[in-house]
Amino acid sequence: MINVAKVPEPPYYAVIFTSRRTLDDKGYAEMADEMVTLAKLQPGFLGIESARDADGVGITVSYWDSEESIRAWKENERHRVAQELGHKKWYERFETRICRVEREYGFKKSPSEDADG
Amino acid sequence: MINVAKVPEPPYYAVIFTSRRTLDDKGYAEMADEMVTLAKLQPGFLGIESARDADGVGITVSYWDSEESIRAWKENERHRVAQELGHKKWYERFETRICRVEREYGFKKSPSEDADG
Repeated sequence: MINVAKVPEPPYYAVIFTSRRTLDDKGYAEMADEMVTLAKLQPGFLGIESARDADGVGITVSYWDSEESIRAWKENERHRVAQELGHKKWYERFETRICRVEREYGFKKSPSEDADG
Repeated sequence: MINVAKVPEPPYYAVIFTSRRTLDDKGYAEMADEMVTLAKLQPGFLGIESARDADGVGITVSYWDSEESIRAWKENERHRVAQELGHKKWYERFETRICRVEREYGFKKSPSEDADG
């Protein structure tokens, strides 16, 4: 599984991809894995996070250094094939939102706090 | 479950909350439901999307009209209680990212396309 991404200080860019899947599973997991592998090789890629509920709603957020890097990834040849198959087969619906991350803050439990649980 | 959110045209704001849960479930689901109910009553709230993987990584994205609305929600008294309990009990780790949504595009399968599936 993909974990909470740790990326550089803002500003940077995020692509929020929220989707509802169809029941057609054929080839989906393999293509999703391939896209993560390819995205990681793209210039300007910073990180990725993904979660899918049991009921089929999923959110994937990828992080990038610039809008140019996001555009280049969208035009990637193999990614275009995946997008086309996504429309035809795998997605009932999706929304893609391109955002500029302005600020962030986080929290990580220390081992001693774990002991209280 | 929370579905793909449909919100007004950009620009607007998004809060991406990515988390890894602890094993402590006590009170979590009730508080999460209460927070969604309260957030919807906040001025400037536009929508919310959420998904959690079986392995405990979750992503919730809430959408807002302005950074001021996001700040006001963070300061909400009951939300502050939830945040404190989140640190103490429910979250192993999280990252919160405040973003400006610059552009978006979507896709919705038409009923006729469904028939091909």
